[in-house]
Amino acid sequence: MENLLDKIVSFAKRRGFIFPSSEIYGGLANTYDYGPLGVELKNSIKNIWWKKFVQQRDDMVGIDAALIMNTEVWKASGHLKEFYDSLLQCKKCNSIFREDEISGLPIDPSSPSKIEEIKNFLKDLTCPNSKCNQKGNFTLPTLFNLMFETNLGPVKNEKSKVYFRPETAQAMFVDFKQVLDTNPRLRLPFGIAQIGKAFRNEITPGNFIFRTREFEQMEIEYFVKEEEWGKWFEYWRKEMWDWIINGLGLDKNHIHELEVPDSERAHYSKRTIDFEYDFPFGRKELYGLAYRGDFDLKNHYKKAPYKDPDSGEEFYFHVIEPTWGVDRSFLAILCDSYREEKERVVLKLKPHLAPYKAAIFPLLANKPELLKLARKIYDDLRQNFMVAFDDRGNIGKRYYSQDEIGTPYCITVDFESLEKDDVTIRDRDTMLQERVKIKDLIKILEKKLNS
Amino acid sequence: MENLLDKIVSFAKRRGFIFPSSEIYGGLANTYDYGPLGVELKNSIKNIWWKKFVQQRDDMVGIDAALIMNTEVWKASGHLKEFYDSLLQCKKCNSIFREDEISGLPIDPSSPSKIEEIKNFLKDLTCPNSKCNQKGNFTLPTLFNLMFETNLGPVKNEKSKVYFRPETAQAMFVDFKQVLDTNPRLRLPFGIAQIGKAFRNEITPGNFIFRTREFEQMEIEYFVKEEEWGKWFEYWRKEMWDWIINGLGLDKNHIHELEVPDSERAHYSKRTIDFEYDFPFGRKELYGLAYRGDFDLKNHYKKAPYKDPDSGEEFYFHVIEPTWGVDRSFLAILCDSYREEKERVVLKLKPHLAPYKAAIFPLLANKPELLKLARKIYDDLRQNFMVAFDDRGNIGKRYYSQDEIGTPYCITVDFESLEKDDVTIRDRDTMLQERVKIKDLIKILEKKLNS
Repeated sequence: MENLLDKIVSFAKRRGFIFPSSEIYGGLANTYDYGPLGVELKNSIKNIWWKKFVQQRDDMVGIDAALIMNTEVWKASGHLKEFYDSLLQCKKCNSIFREDEISGLPIDPSSPSKIEEIKNFLKDLTCPNSKCNQKGNFTLPTLFNLMFETNLGPVKNEKSKVYFRPETAQAMFVDFKQVLDTNPRLRLPFGIAQIGKAFRNEITPGNFIFRTREFEQMEIEYFVKEEEWGKWFEYWRKEMWDWIINGLGLDKNHIHELEVPDSERAHYSKRTIDFEYDFPFGRKELYGLAYRGDFDLKNHYKKAPYKDPDSGEEFYFHVIEPTWGVDRSFLAILCDSYREEKERVVLKLKPHLAPYKAAIFPLLANKPELLKLARKIYDDLRQNFMVAFDDRGNIGKRYYSQDEIGTPYCITVDFESLEKDDVTIRDRDTMLQERVKIKDLIKILEKKLNS
Repeated sequence: MENLLDKIVSFAKRRGFIFPSSEIYGGLANTYDYGPLGVELKNSIKNIWWKKFVQQRDDMVGIDAALIMNTEVWKASGHLKEFYDSLLQCKKCNSIFREDEISGLPIDPSSPSKIEEIKNFLKDLTCPNSKCNQKGNFTLPTLFNLMFETNLGPVKNEKSKVYFRPETAQAMFVDFKQVLDTNPRLRLPFGIAQIGKAFRNEITPGNFIFRTREFEQMEIEYFVKEEEWGKWFEYWRKEMWDWIINGLGLDKNHIHELEVPDSERAHYSKRTIDFEYDFPFGRKELYGLAYRGDFDLKNHYKKAPYKDPDSGEEFYFHVIEPTWGVDRSFLAILCDSYREEKERVVLKLKPHLAPYKAAIFPLLANKPELLKLARKIYDDLRQNFMVAFDDRGNIGKRYYSQDEIGTPYCITVDFESLEKDDVTIRDRDTMLQERVKIKDLIKILEKKLNS
């Protein structure tokens, strides 16, 4: 199965979905750029999500907040105090490791009373660097904050130090009051949604775009009354399944709910479910759904609970938080839809996700009348959809080239088209062709894409 | 005219277009968040741009690159050496100023031979801080790099230092080879387009969202043969005007071309035009169009010029670069479309830009049959468009509330609707109403929105 990841990395690069970033300069530690087809697939994921969860709902509004936020936000949220990895460095080879990755260290490293216990444990630990493998040469664990820091303005000091947001969520809490003030009609339950980048200074990013230092989230903070949290938690659990099946078209057998146990949940959360996907490198978190209680609003609005305009009652809203990773969605889609068949590679994307919704071919490129009609159809269609045009090589090769990048429909203009105003439309998955009238093409495609 | 900016800032906040970022913590030096209506308008700008310049063109492909790039990129591009502001600090009050803002300093501060001349000049300079106003108390100019720096991984040293991109452009040059390799059909001229954030550590951001430290660009690098640059420069100049008029709907009398003189152009550019807009705070740069020669590709691909697959000829492509600021587009749109009329404030947005494309009203909210039909129309329309629903207060107030946020069409369901299956549709600008069949609504709106 590891092999599938290699294939997908190489396929994504070869067809222009994802390139290593700054590759001409040797790349940059697990950073990637989305290429011409990748940006279309990624935008499709985001657009479909926004349409489903914002545009088509009464109870949701969107925001798009700045990436650098006031440091007080990270004080209130706990990130400045608690968003740390515990690191161990081998004194021999200087390699640095995340403690939880190499040790299963059974001791809370922040507890000073346990220092002898830690030292004893480290004495027997072997460096995982295969060129080193020294035993008992580790420093004591040190804590490293995962937020990227920088300075605002020309003076570098504690006062000018700021952080790039490590999650999109806090913006929804901090802007909560402004959203409510400008939308006086919002009544519980309602949500604030955001799509945007977040940054974590991971020391070991990896597995292609699964874990990268900058990544994109689609996130909702859904505000409810305390007594109704269970009901809305179940509601969002179903919505996430619906997105997985009908939004992304993933095989439901590849998705597994993990009920996060008490000991591993954040202290404020009464319930968290991870949606895990069977990636080639193992079953790993794809999405998360958490009940955060009133932890966040209480933190940010200490002395200003919500006052119900009707009853005058004062209370804090409770929060259900469904979170979707854009890049992880992208990777899961590639893993789920990449197929090597006898004669072709085919990317079985749900049609509404495909970079090109259709490709238009003149049967022969050296016949001006075929070329002209095909161009006309292409020009009409691309007013509505992202479509490709290809007039090179034999039709079979053109089909396979489109199959490989997931184009669901190939439209061929042949000599009959000139007489009968119709074309063939070939289905990527069944490889069956049907003849349809040119004038009906837009309607037919719209119907197929929305089904 | 300054007054108009104040009005727009306050309007944008009141109606949820733009909030000061982290406002509950006192904000963060000229940083802003886009609220529920702002994110829709901003997304409209980006989507229309992508559709026009990528989807509907044969000669354009998109990318979406990482924000942190390999530092070698900034060495090659010149940003590490040359992307500096020259700063002066008042020793009395410690305020820091951009030299070009306060002095019109006639001397190149990087030239050490001129040091006496500079000192003489500074002796007579008065601190602009009104609480200080001390004369001759300035430090010598110091250079400050405008890129935001941070460190990758837990060790802070020169080796781990990286920068957030100060422009989107370099990603197109660095990914150029990968784009070409994965799109073997691309032939000159062709372009690579990107929408994304860039970061500049300005010491004096200001004028609302005109100059902020993080901002979003829409940018194209268009590759041409050297001998054709003039022709394509003119082509893109026309395209930019078309975008301004037909994309954004700005009054063309508010836009002015500025031919950037030799002395102010980057050394590699043979021609640059700024498109300036009459902002309330003065005529300022909205967009830019530059001919960059082969400067960039030569820098990044030193020993690997392009080899024409047909002729075998070796050469570097030349580059025309049209650049659009997303946030500046947003601000120009607000300035251009905000009108205070006798009885209402109206935002005369081009319909395809409006956050809500239409609003649906039941004439009376306490009549279940009106409410039911209005909800049904609302539910149907929002499968296709972003639409609002409002059943509160009298119809006049509801119209004005929608006028203020630029909703181009208001659809009212009245008692006649129940019998005749029709509704009134009111035009924001003319305030005229017409009756149309409910079943034709989607088509009518589509037509109006695309006109």
